[in-house]
Amino acid sequence: MAPLIEGVCRGEPRAVARAISMVENGEAGSAELSAGIFHRSGGAATIGLTGAPGAGKSTLAAGLVAAARSRDRVVGVLAVDPSSPRTGGALLGDRLRMQEHATDGRVYIRSMASRGALGGMALAAPEAIRILEAAGADVVIVETVGVGQAEVDVATVVDTTVVVVTSGWGDAVQASKAGLLELADILVVNKADREGASEAVRDLEAMVRGGDGSTWRPPVLRAIAVDGEGVDDLWMAIERHRAHLEASGELDARRERRLRAEVAARVASALERRVDEVLDADPALASALAERRADPYVTARSVLDRMTRPPIEAE
Amino acid sequence: MAPLIEGVCRGEPRAVARAISMVENGEAGSAELSAGIFHRSGGAATIGLTGAPGAGKSTLAAGLVAAARSRDRVVGVLAVDPSSPRTGGALLGDRLRMQEHATDGRVYIRSMASRGALGGMALAAPEAIRILEAAGADVVIVETVGVGQAEVDVATVVDTTVVVVTSGWGDAVQASKAGLLELADILVVNKADREGASEAVRDLEAMVRGGDGSTWRPPVLRAIAVDGEGVDDLWMAIERHRAHLEASGELDARRERRLRAEVAARVASALERRVDEVLDADPALASALAERRADPYVTARSVLDRMTRPPIEAE
Repeated sequence: MAPLIEGVCRGEPRAVARAISMVENGEAGSAELSAGIFHRSGGAATIGLTGAPGAGKSTLAAGLVAAARSRDRVVGVLAVDPSSPRTGGALLGDRLRMQEHATDGRVYIRSMASRGALGGMALAAPEAIRILEAAGADVVIVETVGVGQAEVDVATVVDTTVVVVTSGWGDAVQASKAGLLELADILVVNKADREGASEAVRDLEAMVRGGDGSTWRPPVLRAIAVDGEGVDDLWMAIERHRAHLEASGELDARRERRLRAEVAARVASALERRVDEVLDADPALASALAERRADPYVTARSVLDRMTRPPIEAE
Repeated sequence: MAPLIEGVCRGEPRAVARAISMVENGEAGSAELSAGIFHRSGGAATIGLTGAPGAGKSTLAAGLVAAARSRDRVVGVLAVDPSSPRTGGALLGDRLRMQEHATDGRVYIRSMASRGALGGMALAAPEAIRILEAAGADVVIVETVGVGQAEVDVATVVDTTVVVVTSGWGDAVQASKAGLLELADILVVNKADREGASEAVRDLEAMVRGGDGSTWRPPVLRAIAVDGEGVDDLWMAIERHRAHLEASGELDARRERRLRAEVAARVASALERRVDEVLDADPALASALAERRADPYVTARSVLDRMTRPPIEAE
């Protein structure tokens, strides 16, 4: 494990790729890897890009990579892909726009399945971000591919969440329905040369909250990502948001909250796996549930009682 | 609580509505309610409708309600709505097509937020289904509104999952990306009068698996739900799928798996809440995490050790 940790810390692309695959698959050694790089993590500005499919997130992400590179920043990109491991991994077609950066040694690009062994966004993504930070990334962009819980969860793993919508009628309403607006630190109306862009901006302006002095009011930006328009404005809005997080003390608070949530998810995941063991060890409990004599509340209580008792051999 | 339980078991709409709100909000009394109705649950055929926004799920659901009523079945409809409680509850606009059934005393229609206190789909939906079953529902239709995890999770709470797509180009691919195809027991190409319907059917046929004798091969149906076309075919496909589940023993197996998953989710949820208590009770543990001296793996291990020790007062 030591050579892998050293490779990550030297920023070697193959070591970074190997380490991210390791945590994504929940391989043995993940804990040791985590322990080896944790003290070098926490240094990047982390940016999440979310929104409905077709909104242009990949193009905006590629634009942000270019903006970061023009400022000489080292960049990591995580594309979190909700397609299951069973039906096939990374959607390479969506990643084509990233190809211009693929040969740049200061840009790390990795796809991750969001339903891997480790619970994807909740457990594997924070660890993958830390690996990129240990490798020297100043900026980490987390982009969700397609729909699903990843769209919402991305906000739980990054400092700044960018919600991308297009100017199509109802797009703002859809983003609102999906619960994305309340997660947004910055909103982008992409493809802003299309009809309805002004209305989309107006609708979103009316929906966002905050801005009473101490709180952040999410700005609503326009972009035509495919032409590079609006990308620099987005970059600057991200920097303003980060400055606000730092000045208000919110950055440290968010990061501590995120680490605690990750510990809680890890604890829950470990214990959830043990529930089946407890039920298998007690056929009476399992059959009472299956035969609808003991409801899930009561059964959960019984399982909890058994779990929180000390194992007999420990006496 | 007894009058509420009796009201539910007599099928009184107000008692059903009150009981579902209670479990949705995780109110005190939910466990007692659950215990009081559990033995009367499990009697309905449960059907999930999922797919991208705009695919016509609501219209198909209304059609299925009519199909069930024409066969004299008592029907429950749960519309699981991913809009957060913070930004506003039920999307009544989407529910307009259900209005024709709203005055039918044998049809129960309820909206639920999928991010309520009880974790929405994983915990509240199974309980809401059981309440509808205790009230006498023969058929329960669970419809997801909009995008998000609910789209995927619906398959974990019902017997038969129907994935609805439209014939728009790329819709099938999108459903595949979102991980919906592998969840589908039945696929419906809705709005089949539009261009591209035959291609969508062909694409989906090529993507589905199964059918090697013992396993179920998801049929790909066409529908124009707004005209009622294809709804009866869908109803019959649902009945065939149910007959397959019963004949193969898969129905009991699925239901026991679901109950166990619910117990596991309930146990995990109870313990996840306790993680913050453990961290607050041990400032050294919390600060080592916040200052990046102890990584989340190690911290989770420490929290688990503390949790699984007996409380001192129990000795």
